[in-house]
Amino acid sequence: MKILFKNARILTMADSNIFDGHLVVTDNRISYVGKQLPSGMFDQVIDCEGNLLMPGFKNAHTHSAMTFLRSKADDSSLQDWLFNEIFPREANLHEGCIKELTKVAILEYLSSGVTAVLDQYFYPQEFADTCNEFGFRSVSLAMYDPKARPVEEILRLIRDNNKPSSLATFVIGLHSEYTPTDEMFETTIKLLETTKSPYYVHLSETQKEVDECYERRKMSPMEFFDSLHMFDNGGAIFHGVYLSDNDIEIIKKHDITVVSNPSSNMKLASGIADVTKLLNKGVRVALGTDGPASNNALDMFREMYLATGLQKLKHNNPVSIPAYEVLKMATINGAYAMGLKDADTLEVGKLADLIMIDLYRPSMQPINNIINNLVYSGEKDCVKLTMINGKILYRDGKFYVGEDIKDIYKKVQLLTEELNKIK
Amino acid sequence: MKILFKNARILTMADSNIFDGHLVVTDNRISYVGKQLPSGMFDQVIDCEGNLLMPGFKNAHTHSAMTFLRSKADDSSLQDWLFNEIFPREANLHEGCIKELTKVAILEYLSSGVTAVLDQYFYPQEFADTCNEFGFRSVSLAMYDPKARPVEEILRLIRDNNKPSSLATFVIGLHSEYTPTDEMFETTIKLLETTKSPYYVHLSETQKEVDECYERRKMSPMEFFDSLHMFDNGGAIFHGVYLSDNDIEIIKKHDITVVSNPSSNMKLASGIADVTKLLNKGVRVALGTDGPASNNALDMFREMYLATGLQKLKHNNPVSIPAYEVLKMATINGAYAMGLKDADTLEVGKLADLIMIDLYRPSMQPINNIINNLVYSGEKDCVKLTMINGKILYRDGKFYVGEDIKDIYKKVQLLTEELNKIK
Repeated sequence: MKILFKNARILTMADSNIFDGHLVVTDNRISYVGKQLPSGMFDQVIDCEGNLLMPGFKNAHTHSAMTFLRSKADDSSLQDWLFNEIFPREANLHEGCIKELTKVAILEYLSSGVTAVLDQYFYPQEFADTCNEFGFRSVSLAMYDPKARPVEEILRLIRDNNKPSSLATFVIGLHSEYTPTDEMFETTIKLLETTKSPYYVHLSETQKEVDECYERRKMSPMEFFDSLHMFDNGGAIFHGVYLSDNDIEIIKKHDITVVSNPSSNMKLASGIADVTKLLNKGVRVALGTDGPASNNALDMFREMYLATGLQKLKHNNPVSIPAYEVLKMATINGAYAMGLKDADTLEVGKLADLIMIDLYRPSMQPINNIINNLVYSGEKDCVKLTMINGKILYRDGKFYVGEDIKDIYKKVQLLTEELNKIK
Repeated sequence: MKILFKNARILTMADSNIFDGHLVVTDNRISYVGKQLPSGMFDQVIDCEGNLLMPGFKNAHTHSAMTFLRSKADDSSLQDWLFNEIFPREANLHEGCIKELTKVAILEYLSSGVTAVLDQYFYPQEFADTCNEFGFRSVSLAMYDPKARPVEEILRLIRDNNKPSSLATFVIGLHSEYTPTDEMFETTIKLLETTKSPYYVHLSETQKEVDECYERRKMSPMEFFDSLHMFDNGGAIFHGVYLSDNDIEIIKKHDITVVSNPSSNMKLASGIADVTKLLNKGVRVALGTDGPASNNALDMFREMYLATGLQKLKHNNPVSIPAYEVLKMATINGAYAMGLKDADTLEVGKLADLIMIDLYRPSMQPINNIINNLVYSGEKDCVKLTMINGKILYRDGKFYVGEDIKDIYKKVQLLTEELNKIK
């Protein structure tokens, strides 16, 4: 299968340059990018009419199947939210729900130009199966839990899913510093050593979390994990709102990515991560939406806008952070954090995970600066096409996932109503 | 002309109730809203398939024709931004540009479900002509300026435009406390007295503005205007980020609306208006996008999300502000501020300024709470139809404004390149 995208503007994200050119996808990889129109036979020719081709967004922290909780517990305090709204409803979850709940999230990712997510939730095999079925790329956390997911299950998840043909792969992580038992830490450390996997975890999301860790362990959550050598193969932390200078040194030492979730941290009143400081200290920052209960949109344009907007407020300085830095966070930095080294830029040999941005939407006009347009006035309605692994899954507002979306919605509505009956 | 919208969910905004029903538009007004399917002959029948009908958004503070400055001066300091980027480029403006620059803004308003704006910019007659031509509703500020717009011109703007058939009407305002001359204040006071017009002005946007007013006048900007009786017929202030308790008392005394612009105040690092306090004190708050140079999107969904999100951060409290309060700000409160008492709710006799929200977009699913969906995960791509004054101007991503939008973009691009050559 050979697809020619002709007459495009192209932003490869290998640098900030945008040029007029053409791009060829052969099967699931990019086989040509350049200014000369290539000759030859193609199975499909798409005239981009001057619209922009760029790498898809990488949503580096989410809990996809939480769609059933969207708009269910807004405007409530964090304690209320977690203990009275979220946890009792999550207790109703069973593996039979995950596929449908995930499908709605994937549809939204596609409509927002997201071509891969780093996911963390219950029933990861069901999540992976759904991604493979829809053709959506994901990396998810295999989290050791003696009750739900013993060591053999972790190793099976990795062995069965981390194959060249699979779109849904696994890495090792834990929920946080404050939820696992000692035994969960010990076993996870062994798993990280055995598999040489990078490590992923929620970290320093709230001041309370950090304070309680100091009380318990006389050190910060990052210092705690570092003392256990859990980040020796790198990885990423989610949130990172309250990081000390020493935490930042550890982050740099192990080449850890900080995944910032500005909308979620705003909506739950957790605070504003000091992304400006992280960038100034040379830390790689990526972006995530967090789950649909705490954001509530799964929209990387929203995260990009807030990533720079909230820094301007925090530092009382409209200069931080420049738009291209934000665009890197939402694309190549996320890909690095997720280990998707072949799905980062639009270069020959890379996986064909790309999007077309409609420059003829009014918020993209006039064209003074396309990169600034993307970050400051880009929105879902500018996403004209989303391709993952060489397949077009979304185009002109329509989904090509092999299933009627109204059927998906009907099933999810029934499931949602059932799950939201708090027992 | 009689149009039936059948099988809708309807949110009239007279209250927060949403019911399954039908709505009829006869010419430019709503002639039926109810649960019974009306019989009779219709020129057009639109099956809403369960989608939501609600009043269009009212963007209560903007500078539409600033589209030429979109993405031109982001990530720069406020002083740099105004004096080196905005003012020199605005000096190149001439009345021949306003129509085209405004058209791009109107297209974006339509795509975001905005059915009326309160506009303030150069060459207001050209702006009004464009709104009338496109069928878009607006209220704009006639600002006295001896060089550009003498008293006779203000009176002519009001006399010629404020007619029952006109979609674009005028009220009286000034730019701010810190730009007009004494003579401009004196003449505007006389104009307000003669016309009994409400008064509109930028007020307390930055701490610097308030500090300098105290230095100059030993009082706050609001106290200054109150001492001159300029708000005796009500009106609205734009921004209101730095308001004292006494300012708030004056606002209540004169039934003034505070138009908050959360995105603009964030992007220019001006601060976060204390909307929570204003609401607790019983002040009416509306929302505006501000102009495309300082936001940069003209998107009321963005403003709604930030209106509540930034309050949660400011008060370290995820409870403020509930979604329905935000929705009122974006609709009926804006209509009140603009004097559009006939274009606020979906009730019989009101003007047919309405939108249809596509509940089948993934961010609107599942349906736990439609009002929360609108505020927390609503986005431009959920706007399925925008009707103003009984005419459908936008539907399913396409514009019906009597002109090819690619032609508009071409003209605006040429104009933008010309205007952005700083002399």
